[in-house]
Amino acid sequence: MPIKSLIRTIPHYPKQGIQFRDITTLLLDPVGFHLVIDALALHYKHHHIDKIAGIEARGFIVGAALAYKLGLGFVPVRKAGKLPAETIGHDYALEYGADRVELHLDAVTEGEQVLLVDDLIATGGTAQAAAALIQKLGGVVVGCAFVIDLPDLGGSQRLADSGLKPFSLCEFEGN
Amino acid sequence: MPIKSLIRTIPHYPKQGIQFRDITTLLLDPVGFHLVIDALALHYKHHHIDKIAGIEARGFIVGAALAYKLGLGFVPVRKAGKLPAETIGHDYALEYGADRVELHLDAVTEGEQVLLVDDLIATGGTAQAAAALIQKLGGVVVGCAFVIDLPDLGGSQRLADSGLKPFSLCEFEGN
Repeated sequence: MPIKSLIRTIPHYPKQGIQFRDITTLLLDPVGFHLVIDALALHYKHHHIDKIAGIEARGFIVGAALAYKLGLGFVPVRKAGKLPAETIGHDYALEYGADRVELHLDAVTEGEQVLLVDDLIATGGTAQAAAALIQKLGGVVVGCAFVIDLPDLGGSQRLADSGLKPFSLCEFEGN
Repeated sequence: MPIKSLIRTIPHYPKQGIQFRDITTLLLDPVGFHLVIDALALHYKHHHIDKIAGIEARGFIVGAALAYKLGLGFVPVRKAGKLPAETIGHDYALEYGADRVELHLDAVTEGEQVLLVDDLIATGGTAQAAAALIQKLGGVVVGCAFVIDLPDLGGSQRLADSGLKPFSLCEFEGN
């Protein structure tokens, strides 16, 4: 996939030993950005999807453009304390510490088919927490779409094992 | 503009006396979200634009979908410490305290025409700081596009006075 060649690797970011996969160089490229959205749209062409949920903050970029392309509404999954109306939240463990994602109570209704979108899947903790919120509201997670998978971190396998149907446009080895 | 009827007002958020204009109800609506992007695209149809810069985080949603629609690349203007490569930053004053936005050094090149996008213009401090970053890199701010203007807070007037050409799809009185 030519998309991969537009992704920049930043060594030792945000800390020693981590190879950070930076999609800003891909987003910056008009053809690359268009290709990302069109490739995701093509993959989900025959799926019934009611709305797109994007995970803050890079998932907003990919998810919102995909929602526009597919003619769907967009729901932001945000970090704690960012959504103004009534929310539900889900806490999850990080390597060190914990984090929390939130969703507006009216963002998803019973039986709706929701496609979850983020830029990258690593250990999958955030995506699993976001999926749990959608399911708590009665929504069905049709799939989880990413630009990049880091399969060595096991997140996509974990999502697959939970029936969350991950799909990514490209993979990078290592962390 | 029917867009306005899809925006929810949350009284006293994030603090007493503030009427928060919440676009999540608009984004949630497939027709409303599509209309927002198409209305912005129509407004800028005859402008020469090289790329879209969206301000974190809600500006990512509107800006990325607009970039997709217009076939342009997308540049994220982020809060301090969020961008992985080399950045420039701009500090600006808030009502209480200060904040900072950052841009990758390679996000804009000399002479490029950039459209700045956010969901809402209030006092205009963030938009002015983001515009300053684009200009520091040699870019030209073609305009600043918003879904909502709060004209009583004077931000759009301030941007206009600075030659930053603000445009909004709808207005709300008060704060």
